[in-house]
Amino acid sequence: MRTPADNAQLALLLEVAGTPKPGNVDRHRDLEDLWFDHFLASSVGVREGLELAERGEPVGTAFERAVEGMAAQGGGNTQFGALLLLVPLVRAARDDLSQATLETVCEDTTVADAADFYRAFDHVDVFVDEPPAELEPLDVRRGSDAIPALEDRGLTLLDLMSRSVPGDDVAREWVEGFERTFTAAERLADADGPPTDRAARVFLSLLAERPDTLVATRSGESVAQDVTDRAAELVARDALETNRDAVEAFADDLVDRGINPGTTADLTAAGLFVALEREVVTV
Amino acid sequence: MRTPADNAQLALLLEVAGTPKPGNVDRHRDLEDLWFDHFLASSVGVREGLELAERGEPVGTAFERAVEGMAAQGGGNTQFGALLLLVPLVRAARDDLSQATLETVCEDTTVADAADFYRAFDHVDVFVDEPPAELEPLDVRRGSDAIPALEDRGLTLLDLMSRSVPGDDVAREWVEGFERTFTAAERLADADGPPTDRAARVFLSLLAERPDTLVATRSGESVAQDVTDRAAELVARDALETNRDAVEAFADDLVDRGINPGTTADLTAAGLFVALEREVVTV
Repeated sequence: MRTPADNAQLALLLEVAGTPKPGNVDRHRDLEDLWFDHFLASSVGVREGLELAERGEPVGTAFERAVEGMAAQGGGNTQFGALLLLVPLVRAARDDLSQATLETVCEDTTVADAADFYRAFDHVDVFVDEPPAELEPLDVRRGSDAIPALEDRGLTLLDLMSRSVPGDDVAREWVEGFERTFTAAERLADADGPPTDRAARVFLSLLAERPDTLVATRSGESVAQDVTDRAAELVARDALETNRDAVEAFADDLVDRGINPGTTADLTAAGLFVALEREVVTV
Repeated sequence: MRTPADNAQLALLLEVAGTPKPGNVDRHRDLEDLWFDHFLASSVGVREGLELAERGEPVGTAFERAVEGMAAQGGGNTQFGALLLLVPLVRAARDDLSQATLETVCEDTTVADAADFYRAFDHVDVFVDEPPAELEPLDVRRGSDAIPALEDRGLTLLDLMSRSVPGDDVAREWVEGFERTFTAAERLADADGPPTDRAARVFLSLLAERPDTLVATRSGESVAQDVTDRAAELVARDALETNRDAVEAFADDLVDRGINPGTTADLTAAGLFVALEREVVTV
């Protein structure tokens, strides 16, 4: 019988192993400096943080610890966004893994949780947009140096997430009741085959629906829209069944161009967690 | 900073991800009813047993718990042999991961550890030879039903391992001071590239040296010798560098014929653990 921390760890492993997952590390593809091996090590390192969430420690405490453990490998940022979804999900699973419970978990976050979120940025480089000038004191890249400004303004972790929408579809889950996470879980349940095959299919379906916000931040909105249009075209003709080579070619092309739909991978991992907890996907 | 339980979990993940690993599940190959996904789930499930070993619980207790957690997935036996090596290794790593400490850990096992070893067979089907008639009461396939016979004879877990040599090269590690495990760790340190590439290389080198005892038990000694001869031929011409397709073809052939050098994979996982603990392989 797996615990929520077990299922969160397994969700991270199944997500990265799913292939083809265009633009991301998967079990058939390494990026130049970011390998499948790094994701395996990261999935081990996050364990203690996930266990803190399972034991009911504050979301910020558990998240910072998970990111610290994640960063104890040489590939850099592997699962920051996925953890920002998984930590409240694990916390909610203590009681009841419903959208209502998740809303409560997010609403109950405090300024201390927000401070821990900033501390997490001390452990790893995360790609984010330049903030507008008036928000420079709150730039997450300042890490724990930004905590006094944060405390002055009395912002909770949910407040921070709200300010990141639109633009960051991980933060959007926090303010939209984890809507796409639960949609992903339903799709994972409805798909066929081993969980990693389901993960690849659902990843592509999510990418086909909304431009990936990490791609938009790094490469611009038109690139993100183009990636989504190509994914939608592949989904429309069920290319994973009818022309798998076309999906593999799309995957290779995105890797070659350094286009990495990481937010979509984060949502897939979160969906896997919900599907494993509800036992609608088994392994 | 990874703990011994973390490194044991990571060793299992890196081992199964290494490719090509002829005849075994790897990140490019599933067997018909045993998938990469099952190994990921198993690597999560063994966690609690590994933590018991790390906290100094008896080897038998930790091993049985690890096997119980391993078996909580649908693929059956994934890592039984690897755990029989990793549990004493994690136990030794509490003090000092040397061959001398390992000998002490093995010598200190008791009849109670042997009983837990038998209980582990209640959780999962493991492929073993028919015992000779006079040893039928001690057939491991009887699981916990064999414990009274075991207690009558006062056999420790090390006694059981000694009786399985020759014929089982996991048991051989217990009586030979984990000699091949430490050799594997040295080779992993000397190899190049990501840990999973090193694992594939060292797996092939171990297979080239001694016939795999799981293959011998299942398919006969001549098949096991033939597999080793073919591995030796590939190693002699450094085929992983000079003709990778030949290794991939060998891997596909063994998978097609259902020939699974699982003992060699167990030794590779054990070597990875030692290499990670000594930080001669990093990720």
